[in-house]
Amino acid sequence: MAKKQNYEENKEFIPKFDENGLIPAIAQDARTGQVLMAAYMNHQALDVTIQSGYATYYSRSRQKLWKKGEESGHRQKVQQILVDCDQDCLILKVSVDAGQCHVGYQSCFYRALKKNSNKELVFIEEKVYDPEEVYKK
Amino acid sequence: MAKKQNYEENKEFIPKFDENGLIPAIAQDARTGQVLMAAYMNHQALDVTIQSGYATYYSRSRQKLWKKGEESGHRQKVQQILVDCDQDCLILKVSVDAGQCHVGYQSCFYRALKKNSNKELVFIEEKVYDPEEVYKK
Repeated sequence: MAKKQNYEENKEFIPKFDENGLIPAIAQDARTGQVLMAAYMNHQALDVTIQSGYATYYSRSRQKLWKKGEESGHRQKVQQILVDCDQDCLILKVSVDAGQCHVGYQSCFYRALKKNSNKELVFIEEKVYDPEEVYKK
Repeated sequence: MAKKQNYEENKEFIPKFDENGLIPAIAQDARTGQVLMAAYMNHQALDVTIQSGYATYYSRSRQKLWKKGEESGHRQKVQQILVDCDQDCLILKVSVDAGQCHVGYQSCFYRALKKNSNKELVFIEEKVYDPEEVYKK
């Protein structure tokens, strides 16, 4: 119990990576507070993010480091990195100058559950760029 | 590819639970935009949340449903549930009237990595309640 409290009250950054070596990371617009996306980092991605100042994640589908914006140019400049009480989740407060979701929206969270429904979504955002233009080969 | 696009562009809520039957859920203050905590839901927790209108998570450590605030009284009234492009992460926009972190802070994200350090944290919030009072037996 003492150890747990230390963990929560101390000033040592000891992020907990899960059994796959990953920690969830939430990107939040530092200016507006909008949550832009949620992804994962491995130890290397976190190191690269801290060193470079730009968000780098670990892509579970591609199984490699994913420098956010490497293809689209829609990077995230990191202003601050927050960690939660048990140090198993991060928030990146970021500055962005373009839409952050590959579908074309500012945020990946562009749909909400309709009131009084457990099945139907409503779109709550408009697209801010054309992904076919940005991701064209 | 067509299927993937449908998934991202459709209005059907089909949340993806992981191999443990869980989906990450981020609680965000609907008024201030502050991210309060990140936790997990199983299918039942999501159902209970939708039906009751109050956030219910799945506690991985206790391996059971966790009605947020059942002990502290610090509940989260759900205003809106957002889902991301690939439907494997949720945001709960919630109304709260008390601190949400069991350590005594408004948000679980009460520490940030110090500038130009990869090891040292700084506290960025003050406690808003005394957990020993709230969680006393």
